[in-house]
Amino acid sequence: MTDAATNMRLKLPLICIILEVILIILFGTLVQYNYETDARLWHEHKTNHSDYDNDFYYRYPSFQDVHVMIFIGFGFLMTFLQRYGFSSVGFNFLIAAFALQWATLMQGFFHGMHHGKIHIGVESMINADFCTGSVLISFGAVLGKTSPVQLLVMALFEVTLFAVNEFILLSALGARDAGGSMTIHTFGAYFGLVVARVLYRPNLDKSKHRNSSVYHSDLFAMIGTIYLWMFWPSFNSAITAHGDDQHRTAMNTYYSLAACTLSTYALSALTAHDGKLDMVHIQNAALAGGVAAGTAGEMMLTPFGSMIVGFLAGIISVLGFKYLSPILEEKLKIQDTCGVHNLHGMPGILGAIVGAVTAALATRDVYGDGLEDVFPDVAKGEIEASFQGVRQAISLAVTLGIALLGGLIVGFILKLPIFGAPPDTICFEDSIYWEVSFTPLFIVLVILHMKTTLRYKCGCVGALKMPYKAQYKYQRYSVK
Amino acid sequence: MTDAATNMRLKLPLICIILEVILIILFGTLVQYNYETDARLWHEHKTNHSDYDNDFYYRYPSFQDVHVMIFIGFGFLMTFLQRYGFSSVGFNFLIAAFALQWATLMQGFFHGMHHGKIHIGVESMINADFCTGSVLISFGAVLGKTSPVQLLVMALFEVTLFAVNEFILLSALGARDAGGSMTIHTFGAYFGLVVARVLYRPNLDKSKHRNSSVYHSDLFAMIGTIYLWMFWPSFNSAITAHGDDQHRTAMNTYYSLAACTLSTYALSALTAHDGKLDMVHIQNAALAGGVAAGTAGEMMLTPFGSMIVGFLAGIISVLGFKYLSPILEEKLKIQDTCGVHNLHGMPGILGAIVGAVTAALATRDVYGDGLEDVFPDVAKGEIEASFQGVRQAISLAVTLGIALLGGLIVGFILKLPIFGAPPDTICFEDSIYWEVSFTPLFIVLVILHMKTTLRYKCGCVGALKMPYKAQYKYQRYSVK
Amino acid sequence: MTDAATNMRLKLPLICIILEVILIILFGTLVQYNYETDARLWHEHKTNHSDYDNDFYYRYPSFQDVHVMIFIGFGFLMTFLQRYGFSSVGFNFLIAAFALQWATLMQGFFHGMHHGKIHIGVESMINADFCTGSVLISFGAVLGKTSPVQLLVMALFEVTLFAVNEFILLSALGARDAGGSMTIHTFGAYFGLVVARVLYRPNLDKSKHRNSSVYHSDLFAMIGTIYLWMFWPSFNSAITAHGDDQHRTAMNTYYSLAACTLSTYALSALTAHDGKLDMVHIQNAALAGGVAAGTAGEMMLTPFGSMIVGFLAGIISVLGFKYLSPILEEKLKIQDTCGVHNLHGMPGILGAIVGAVTAALATRDVYGDGLEDVFPDVAKGEIEASFQGVRQAISLAVTLGIALLGGLIVGFILKLPIFGAPPDTICFEDSIYWEVSFTPLFIVLVILHMKTTLRYKCGCVGALKMPYKAQYKYQRYSVK
Repeated sequence: MTDAATNMRLKLPLICIILEVILIILFGTLVQYNYETDARLWHEHKTNHSDYDNDFYYRYPSFQDVHVMIFIGFGFLMTFLQRYGFSSVGFNFLIAAFALQWATLMQGFFHGMHHGKIHIGVESMINADFCTGSVLISFGAVLGKTSPVQLLVMALFEVTLFAVNEFILLSALGARDAGGSMTIHTFGAYFGLVVARVLYRPNLDKSKHRNSSVYHSDLFAMIGTIYLWMFWPSFNSAITAHGDDQHRTAMNTYYSLAACTLSTYALSALTAHDGKLDMVHIQNAALAGGVAAGTAGEMMLTPFGSMIVGFLAGIISVLGFKYLSPILEEKLKIQDTCGVHNLHGMPGILGAIVGAVTAALATRDVYGDGLEDVFPDVAKGEIEASFQGVRQAISLAVTLGIALLGGLIVGFILKLPIFGAPPDTICFEDSIYWEVSFTPLFIVLVILHMKTTLRYKCGCVGALKMPYKAQYKYQRYSVK
Repeated sequence: MTDAATNMRLKLPLICIILEVILIILFGTLVQYNYETDARLWHEHKTNHSDYDNDFYYRYPSFQDVHVMIFIGFGFLMTFLQRYGFSSVGFNFLIAAFALQWATLMQGFFHGMHHGKIHIGVESMINADFCTGSVLISFGAVLGKTSPVQLLVMALFEVTLFAVNEFILLSALGARDAGGSMTIHTFGAYFGLVVARVLYRPNLDKSKHRNSSVYHSDLFAMIGTIYLWMFWPSFNSAITAHGDDQHRTAMNTYYSLAACTLSTYALSALTAHDGKLDMVHIQNAALAGGVAAGTAGEMMLTPFGSMIVGFLAGIISVLGFKYLSPILEEKLKIQDTCGVHNLHGMPGILGAIVGAVTAALATRDVYGDGLEDVFPDVAKGEIEASFQGVRQAISLAVTLGIALLGGLIVGFILKLPIFGAPPDTICFEDSIYWEVSFTPLFIVLVILHMKTTLRYKCGCVGALKMPYKAQYKYQRYSVK
Repeated sequence: MTDAATNMRLKLPLICIILEVILIILFGTLVQYNYETDARLWHEHKTNHSDYDNDFYYRYPSFQDVHVMIFIGFGFLMTFLQRYGFSSVGFNFLIAAFALQWATLMQGFFHGMHHGKIHIGVESMINADFCTGSVLISFGAVLGKTSPVQLLVMALFEVTLFAVNEFILLSALGARDAGGSMTIHTFGAYFGLVVARVLYRPNLDKSKHRNSSVYHSDLFAMIGTIYLWMFWPSFNSAITAHGDDQHRTAMNTYYSLAACTLSTYALSALTAHDGKLDMVHIQNAALAGGVAAGTAGEMMLTPFGSMIVGFLAGIISVLGFKYLSPILEEKLKIQDTCGVHNLHGMPGILGAIVGAVTAALATRDVYGDGLEDVFPDVAKGEIEASFQGVRQAISLAVTLGIALLGGLIVGFILKLPIFGAPPDTICFEDSIYWEVSFTPLFIVLVILHMKTTLRYKCGCVGALKMPYKAQYKYQRYSVK
């Protein structure tokens, strides 16, 4: 793999423009305003409703919270790498902007066709953002080792498979998964892990010194963490039924996350060799409570149940980072950059199981007429609650199956050499794909550092291999 | 005090797990969904209301704004310290996650017991976040000088006392304090200041070089400042009565903050020795307008009145930072790291006084039937408006009394040597409690810096005392 | 121009206090609560409405999103400069806090006088923030080259002219411009560009080394970018009619931005000399889709149309940065620091044209009874849709005229030497107006850097010219 292969001059523009032109054409032929966004349709029904009844007012604040999670939350969470902040935020931005458009089409195709047209509004926007979230989880597994072109190709396929899996779960199997423990987290994590497995790089340790954080990069990452944590109640409740359901889901998630945070801090200090807290755990495991409340959050899980779930999720997640991730890397050859298995994989499965159990235990005594909202088939008497539990369990199995198989195929597609993957020696490095500038002071330091008599064998290729712009500056300031 | 005492390996996990297990048990026995979050209860009343009437839609957006203030606002505001960013955001995160759970119980115990059960929903979530805010204000006073275990213990007691004080003010005395000038700001500030007084460290100047900001840490802190500033209108209006009250409160706060910002910039430039602006003032004093509008914000203060209040609050706050804080430290031995006396203490008292005066001046002529919402006892004719003013003034006195006495007792509890407080020489330093990694380049610089013939007597223990991980890296790169 | 002239000790406090006192007096005499914020008025109409009908619940979430764009979005977007972060966020904060108060009066004077009083509520708050946005766009053009006093003076005049232009467009001409492609973006950009032209500095290259970004400053700027991007749908829809209009506008903007992001990445890689992405493009051009959907967003533009508009806006914007900005600087002597011509100027004009065309094509067939909301005059049969298009086109011309003429006059006012503009040698430098502190390590590096035998001719005056505080520290640590 030569350095030249990573040049994105033609590849990236080409794929971006082709994809966007296709999207525009498909939107032009297939997509229409739904009755709440269409001027004519909304006003035709005007006798029955007021403008204040428009779903915009009951979904849009949740949508914006989800939107922040997708673009700020995921984007900044991944800036923990010392030399990969531009790519973390920037590629997150690019693939999310693509995926949400493509998801509108794919999800619309499976869920919302009306006389051959896809009808869209705020609910489809939330669903598109959800699907995008799944792609960004997979991005976390391959972070630093993939080109933007690879990521767009991955998003193209993953969104499609996401929509298929979601259709099977929610429409065909009749499962409930409002916050996406299965459809979003489990799917995204295992899909990404298999892709990472296929893209295994035996010589990745050549870039190991860059695969870690520095002080300020960890602070940037905390912006992502805190936003994800704060808005997770909005995420899980964004598309549940209106009224008590949305209210309850948000509250359950809030308590699950709070409990998870305490167990994360406890386990982080406990498992460290000297009792110090590890930023990796805080940044990630403290969020596992949101993942694990994704399926059961809308059910009558109670704050008590939510806190138990969150507490366990935090423990599982920290232990995963500490003991399982090294095994995954050494034995299974899965180089999971962000540890998505610990944040989304295992907690997602936990969430699916909690959802299945909670569903199986549902009674009309507890839910009253609210049973209709949460388990419509049970409320209608078509199935027993226990069978709803079975549906949930089958859904988990289906999700794992599609994620693993899909990830395998897409992984091999991404291996094609034309996509401009970075060489092993300069993974986790922004300057391959971005113009990166340095301060004059920084350049002086590099020079001093080269001149010093200390026999320092520096591995940091990225720092020394200044991009053209920086070299130019260095000449400007130092040679004259 | 030995270095070993700060090891959190067992202490932190132990307290986190014990506290969380107690919380889970108490939630299991005491807490229930309220009628707006419970599936059965909500649907029982379904004939009288639509799903869109659920309070979720009228409180949750405000809740999320408050939530951002608590976790991003307070968390990042305190990252101004050059080597304490992890702890600022991270301990803020930990104690807030604990405090909001504990506050649900304590506030529920005093305000919301129904047949022996605490009923919760979005309003209790906002109140829990409010109570948490008070703890975080106290955290600001002791920032950098306390271990996470001390902070959790402080939160445990402070939340309890907060709930007692809040109950006396709002329920027993019938005071109004929607935005918490008294209950949150005055209480949190003076409680924290007394704790800081009891924990006085005569040799803190050994860590003085770390008790200051650097360029980027000040930018991170501005994230906190701006979020607090923007969302303060939501904070003050989050639990007022619906309709005009919430609307008016948000607007009053908006203008109070705007006026405060201009007086802050004016005073900052005026009091500096060379006319330069001081980031400390901008980051803190510009927020005093929100604090000072906390009590009177829901009243008919008018934008005109709000602007006068904000204008004065900014002036008081900057003058406090400039002239009062050094006196507090030298004469009263109160080492107030973040200057909470200037941001929350004095502006809180100002807000309480403004509230008392505004209440005393209330007339049915001005409030119309809206008097019922703001001063129900006056509206019912039970008391005169002037007596409502007296109630407000008494409330301020009670708040100060409980805060000072409570802070004194809790301060002495925190002095127990088992809690792992940092030694005087390494206060304001993340690497005591956190794994901190450095870039290879940074380590080279440290070496150069040690080797240089300049007779530089470095005070920066923290930078040289590399944690294990960094030392390891240094060996990896330099020794071979 | 001597260094002393930049001393803000008296000038800044004086202007801040005078302006704020005038504002307070004018608010006291002219401003009243509107019927939704006034306790008496709201409760008088209480038989006709519920508290939940208060416009607070249907505008305030949008307001807060806009508020974040103004203070975090614009503020952090401009932190890309390596040594101008304090000023970017801090002056943005100051002039926005002033402008929103002044805008309340100016816009109220033109739009909302009722018996000699200005009635205010959440809608006027949004409009004030919008007007503020326009001032901040102009700020982007002169960033780094103006003192805070100059900026306040500019804001004073620009807000006034904005209100005049807005009145002519929306009230006199009957144009539609909900998201402000014309009133906010085109006006703010061309006003700022002319000001920058008048303030042309032939020797600005003396500060050129500071007029660029460093790694972390670009990450801070991405916070601004992403927030602007995410909340732009709220911006464009914040003051449209309730119901389908607000819903549709948000969705159109969402798709316009997504398409714009892909074309931005494509063009950025395509136009770079080595296929690398340029942060300047990503930070700015990706937002052009929001600007370009500002006028037509509320119309039946369709997602398809929105995506085409966004796609074109991204292309125009990147090409502007690459090819037009150097020409503007060299030939027209317009030193546009942030490239507002590319982000707000050209996309604003594009948005105005798209709005005119979309308006001209409006039919009752497409809009149904919703035509009343979007084009009331067309709905009433007073004018043809094609004439509405003409109105829109005239509005663009008027906006350009007022912006260019206004900018010219204000530019010459700002040239008065009393306002403390920075000298050419220390533009783009925080330490003129702010206390800036450095770490001890940083200072050692500067010393090493001065001692090194490398013949390095450093242009970085700002770094070597340590402020008093830093010098003091350096002495403290090194001399003993």
